Amino acid sequence: MTSTTSEPGKLRIALIGYSFMGSIHAQAWITAPRFFDLGVVPVLAAVCGRDQEAAQSFANRFGIGRVETDWRTLVADPDIDAVDICAPGSLHAEIAMAALEAGKHVLCEKPLANTVGEAERMALAAEEAKARGALAMVGFSYRRTPALAYARELVRDGRLGTVRHIRASYLQDWIVDEEFPLVWRLQKDKAGSGALGDIGAHIIDLAQYVTGHRLAGMSALTETFVKTRPYAGSSSGLQAQLGPEPASGLRAQGHEKPERGAVTVDDATVVIGRTAEGALATFEATRFATGRKNAIRLEVNGSRGSLAFDFEDLNELWFHDHTDPAESSGFRRILVTEPNHPYAGAWWPPGHGLGYDHAFVHQAADFARCVARGEQPEPSFAEGLQIQRLLEAAEASAANNAQWQDVTAGA
Amino acid sequence: MTSTTSEPGKLRIALIGYSFMGSIHAQAWITAPRFFDLGVVPVLAAVCGRDQEAAQSFANRFGIGRVETDWRTLVADPDIDAVDICAPGSLHAEIAMAALEAGKHVLCEKPLANTVGEAERMALAAEEAKARGALAMVGFSYRRTPALAYARELVRDGRLGTVRHIRASYLQDWIVDEEFPLVWRLQKDKAGSGALGDIGAHIIDLAQYVTGHRLAGMSALTETFVKTRPYAGSSSGLQAQLGPEPASGLRAQGHEKPERGAVTVDDATVVIGRTAEGALATFEATRFATGRKNAIRLEVNGSRGSLAFDFEDLNELWFHDHTDPAESSGFRRILVTEPNHPYAGAWWPPGHGLGYDHAFVHQAADFARCVARGEQPEPSFAEGLQIQRLLEAAEASAANNAQWQDVTAGA
Amino acid sequence: MTSTTSEPGKLRIALIGYSFMGSIHAQAWITAPRFFDLGVVPVLAAVCGRDQEAAQSFANRFGIGRVETDWRTLVADPDIDAVDICAPGSLHAEIAMAALEAGKHVLCEKPLANTVGEAERMALAAEEAKARGALAMVGFSYRRTPALAYARELVRDGRLGTVRHIRASYLQDWIVDEEFPLVWRLQKDKAGSGALGDIGAHIIDLAQYVTGHRLAGMSALTETFVKTRPYAGSSSGLQAQLGPEPASGLRAQGHEKPERGAVTVDDATVVIGRTAEGALATFEATRFATGRKNAIRLEVNGSRGSLAFDFEDLNELWFHDHTDPAESSGFRRILVTEPNHPYAGAWWPPGHGLGYDHAFVHQAADFARCVARGEQPEPSFAEGLQIQRLLEAAEASAANNAQWQDVTAGA
Amino acid sequence: MTSTTSEPGKLRIALIGYSFMGSIHAQAWITAPRFFDLGVVPVLAAVCGRDQEAAQSFANRFGIGRVETDWRTLVADPDIDAVDICAPGSLHAEIAMAALEAGKHVLCEKPLANTVGEAERMALAAEEAKARGALAMVGFSYRRTPALAYARELVRDGRLGTVRHIRASYLQDWIVDEEFPLVWRLQKDKAGSGALGDIGAHIIDLAQYVTGHRLAGMSALTETFVKTRPYAGSSSGLQAQLGPEPASGLRAQGHEKPERGAVTVDDATVVIGRTAEGALATFEATRFATGRKNAIRLEVNGSRGSLAFDFEDLNELWFHDHTDPAESSGFRRILVTEPNHPYAGAWWPPGHGLGYDHAFVHQAADFARCVARGEQPEPSFAEGLQIQRLLEAAEASAANNAQWQDVTAGA
Repeated sequence: MTSTTSEPGKLRIALIGYSFMGSIHAQAWITAPRFFDLGVVPVLAAVCGRDQEAAQSFANRFGIGRVETDWRTLVADPDIDAVDICAPGSLHAEIAMAALEAGKHVLCEKPLANTVGEAERMALAAEEAKARGALAMVGFSYRRTPALAYARELVRDGRLGTVRHIRASYLQDWIVDEEFPLVWRLQKDKAGSGALGDIGAHIIDLAQYVTGHRLAGMSALTETFVKTRPYAGSSSGLQAQLGPEPASGLRAQGHEKPERGAVTVDDATVVIGRTAEGALATFEATRFATGRKNAIRLEVNGSRGSLAFDFEDLNELWFHDHTDPAESSGFRRILVTEPNHPYAGAWWPPGHGLGYDHAFVHQAADFARCVARGEQPEPSFAEGLQIQRLLEAAEASAANNAQWQDVTAGA
Repeated sequence: MTSTTSEPGKLRIALIGYSFMGSIHAQAWITAPRFFDLGVVPVLAAVCGRDQEAAQSFANRFGIGRVETDWRTLVADPDIDAVDICAPGSLHAEIAMAALEAGKHVLCEKPLANTVGEAERMALAAEEAKARGALAMVGFSYRRTPALAYARELVRDGRLGTVRHIRASYLQDWIVDEEFPLVWRLQKDKAGSGALGDIGAHIIDLAQYVTGHRLAGMSALTETFVKTRPYAGSSSGLQAQLGPEPASGLRAQGHEKPERGAVTVDDATVVIGRTAEGALATFEATRFATGRKNAIRLEVNGSRGSLAFDFEDLNELWFHDHTDPAESSGFRRILVTEPNHPYAGAWWPPGHGLGYDHAFVHQAADFARCVARGEQPEPSFAEGLQIQRLLEAAEASAANNAQWQDVTAGA
Repeated sequence: MTSTTSEPGKLRIALIGYSFMGSIHAQAWITAPRFFDLGVVPVLAAVCGRDQEAAQSFANRFGIGRVETDWRTLVADPDIDAVDICAPGSLHAEIAMAALEAGKHVLCEKPLANTVGEAERMALAAEEAKARGALAMVGFSYRRTPALAYARELVRDGRLGTVRHIRASYLQDWIVDEEFPLVWRLQKDKAGSGALGDIGAHIIDLAQYVTGHRLAGMSALTETFVKTRPYAGSSSGLQAQLGPEPASGLRAQGHEKPERGAVTVDDATVVIGRTAEGALATFEATRFATGRKNAIRLEVNGSRGSLAFDFEDLNELWFHDHTDPAESSGFRRILVTEPNHPYAGAWWPPGHGLGYDHAFVHQAADFARCVARGEQPEPSFAEGLQIQRLLEAAEASAANNAQWQDVTAGA
Repeated sequence: MTSTTSEPGKLRIALIGYSFMGSIHAQAWITAPRFFDLGVVPVLAAVCGRDQEAAQSFANRFGIGRVETDWRTLVADPDIDAVDICAPGSLHAEIAMAALEAGKHVLCEKPLANTVGEAERMALAAEEAKARGALAMVGFSYRRTPALAYARELVRDGRLGTVRHIRASYLQDWIVDEEFPLVWRLQKDKAGSGALGDIGAHIIDLAQYVTGHRLAGMSALTETFVKTRPYAGSSSGLQAQLGPEPASGLRAQGHEKPERGAVTVDDATVVIGRTAEGALATFEATRFATGRKNAIRLEVNGSRGSLAFDFEDLNELWFHDHTDPAESSGFRRILVTEPNHPYAGAWWPPGHGLGYDHAFVHQAADFARCVARGEQPEPSFAEGLQIQRLLEAAEASAANNAQWQDVTAGA
């Protein structure tokens, strides 16, 4: 199978969204071809955002020649080869399916969608599009952190033996303050879910990616510690734009104290589960772990070894080789910066660590390479759908007193 | 209320058991009065074990003048003031109740018993004995690790604010090898349960002790990764004595390969739960975390701060003060060796760390002090019973597909 | 004072060198204006290298429109506003002085030069050029690692009180293998010195930068553990080009074993010293610390607090506030990723760490801003000269049995 | 050679001193025979201290039947087999030589003496006494920390290859406060030196012990940051007894502010040196490292591997095996609690860490075993003398502008 681009050797990309994710994606597209041999050169052809002025400012910043406020224009344009979706989750399905339908390659931010229904349609659309040469990928970027990519290699190479335990948590603390406003990420209709879909999705994906196991069933609890929050003011940019507004009547009364609205997503989710391959797994995603900023922790224990990772030290992977003599064994702190570590050889000498954004460069590189070769990039929309089913199972369990959810059928 | 001892100023103790726990208790009783002012001097008056020769050897080692092979003799002896029970869990109830009945003070190793029924009778016996001046305590020794005792003080003093998350695990790896023998700790009739009761009990106790919260409900999974193991040989001491033997017919056949019996306890247990005070909690106890030897990890996140502990660095407590300015805040590595830290002032200068065994000295000291003052030592048998109910709830949940167990009624 | 550029709003840069440092500088110039408001937009106008083909390949990679093989052409070109010198140290003086003479702004990689004599001339040239509006800066990039820039702020704000101890080391291990070839960095005529100038220069600069102290005297030892090494083959790129060749006679004999030449620089240097402000300082730079890849460690102890840093965890700064109560104090692990940390606010949310290369972006940004404002960028050539004097003092001490060297006069 | 004791199977010990070191030694003598098979049972026969009441209190605490206020009485007593010297350094030589002369075995706290002259006489006396069956040992207790004893084994077994770097520091902060009083440890006539002899001696000993190298030359700096301190009050026990007193005239004037006296020892010492075997070494001993309580750090880099230790995590040894493949190598955190680690098998299961005091139990055990076997215990007084020469060399260097001191002759 081959895929085509509008101009030989170029991959003309339309970026949908220009906030945090938009900027890191833009920087990644620009940087990838300088450090990786891709077979095709990504070109940021256009950016789309609802606020023309803000989008133009973004375009100027990244040297993008075209600005649109309606993504449909770009999806319809034959000069666009690929669509990179960095919009909120509620828009993923519509944009992605239209783009695939139009023959564009699609990179879609995670989680794939806000519901399993959407995700199923997207996965089906991706399957059909693939037959026509359009490729789709979901952006679980952390997979491309060298330490985690190397962790997967260790498991694949049998260095852990039979995996018995998966222990993952994603800890943040950005909404501990009860006066933090009701931004779109705290609204179910915009974000789908809270900590579960935003960060829990990452650790579920990483756990499966690193171990090769698939979750077969789970029991979950969710909690919303702070039930109401002040409405976001008009000055807070994209988040405020997408946030809910109070009923006009309330607003007119001119209360000094800011009006509060209901938080409709989970602040935290905890999960226990089993994999189809026989391991026990625990997951915890929270925005209330005071002092933890972006602590993605993964520990895997197997019959021959173990590994541990914490994103707060993203260049390190801890590996215990249980076949070493007991007296000289212990968890090794591997700096994943050697030339033969995944992705690391393209960058700096050993010990010169990478940052959060480099994983997005790797993601852009892998996407472009797959397009150039006509190969399916990983993770596919089908994988994104499987994650979506797990997220939905967690919600269903939590809504029913932690009732066990069998998810094998959906895998 | 006052309590009495047979000889003024002395607390004459009979120690039941002489293996790992016996030796650490013996050393603790001897050491405690040298570093703590107790109001009474503990005296190891007798040791009891089924193997006369081994018990005598133990007595010689610790300067104990009397050896018995039947604990009933000691319980009946008016010269004994207190009974320290270091025998397997299946014997706890009988010995403890007889001792309390006889007016002895009792220190009983954890978990309190093998069943809730036993624990209920023990708690009742302790309540009745208390009225007669006999005091009972269960030996959750890790509470007396200075870092954990200080953690409790931080929570009590409001330094964490409202506690939202409890995250605890106890990770060991001593039975990862499938050829490790079927010792008594792997047999339900002797040990009650596996990782759950042996080490899970500790982290559940510690979580409640440090936070002051009480678990209100939970969902649990257990797993036995290695289903059969070789029968323990006759040369392996106490463990072999208490281990099961194969049917004689099988043995007579003289197979070269060792006969295997069924492992009847859990290798690992994972739990999610809620506390009555509104926190989410996760627990994981396993003997299959390759490379983790005795990793007792506890992290607590509150609205004003967080704390973290790992027994592999037992003299350290990590504390994050969320009221510090964001730019200069972070988890502090507190060496819990300052004069005003719990227990630490009795020992060495700051920075000169303590070991695992010191917590047993603190336990012995606290028990003796309470006896001297006629005060109830903590944790009481009632607390031990509450833990027992939680262990049973975990087992019940695990046996029913992680079904939710409400445990508030039993608390 | 104002500085001018050839085209309003643009800073047209000629990059001299295209290997490791060249690529990281190129990426930095391109990235800086996207994340920082500079007042001027850096434009990579040309790259210069002796190997036309390799330089052209580099130019293609980074979108540079012009390639030269003689730096003099670029220095003479009025369309060039600034020269960025990433060539070996032996070329720094000639290029920098010619560029300053021609009115170009200059960013010169560290160490400033190979000798104090060169450095003195360069500093004088920079002083004179400044009067004409041309600015010069030396590239001690690690200063721009947010954790180290924040460390400086803590000292400046008095959080450490009176500084008593500076403890710095820079540990690498890339030449532990005795068969590693004799690359240019191991030749005194090319590199000036070995570990001392290459990495020791960084920790001396950082120690002074963070504390504000200046070294007043020192005693040093150097060692070359591996005295001879194989000549580098012709296939190893820039390093081989610049490496020495064996006498043709030896080569002609056709030995199978590679010919070896003398290593003429230090493998490691250790230093003890005093600062003019009264602190004791220790420095250690080595390429033989097996297992340490790029461990830049700095610890500073003052009367009110201490700080510690290790580049192997580059996003962390450890800070001990000695004014905290003893029982709750300890080194805090600060993730230097908060919006109000130096440079960090321009990037990602808290906890999303940066990499080695980001400091070069900050360096490019600071340089460009200073040019735009006509301000002297730090560190100046005068600062580079002071470091050079310290390096020379270390060499002089080491050559004379660790004889004390007073360096106050030269400061 | 055999050694004898006054009573078969017993080793009757007189303990000189009853403060911090006295109590930890007493506890060690009592504990050692319970956990180690010694061939002889240590018995604390007497304690000696100038304050009869305090000494009696100590004797009661540790069950010692005899109290003396003049050590000469004990040295002359045929019922005493061994003398354990925990008095200040200024008394070591006189007591030790008298005891050896009287045929007693001697354990003497470190540093061996306050001057090389004393140490030479002591070493000579020990050599002569050995011929008569009396054995002498100096108490560098940290050698018996399992992690450090295991470190030595790794080096001995060739796991580090050729040692190139020794990097040691001993960091404390107990006198950072300028109002901390002028205790005996801050007076040269009592303590010999300050940080150098008190804690620097330990890291010099450990560096040599672990690597097997001997220092051949050095250059050193010392500093006294706080020049005067308040005289210690009369209420501060042994320290005050041994502290200097102000001239009575001054005292009579009744100043409200406490009188201050000169600190006559070093607050901190830094050293660079070479070993006879070709390694570079750095040492730093300070009492002004704010936030560091008892941080004994040792890192050793060799051609085949490296090791690192920090007493703040005393149960851990970090080991890097450079013969591992680069991509899976890194420093391993070895918990030195396995049965086949030095000393560890006598205690608890893996992962159940030891404390500071356990090393003293190991020291007592090793001393007693050697006495039982008539073998020379390590470190001998000759080793103590060699350390003393190094301390003196450091002082001489520091007094002469860091002048190089060759110490091979004295080794």
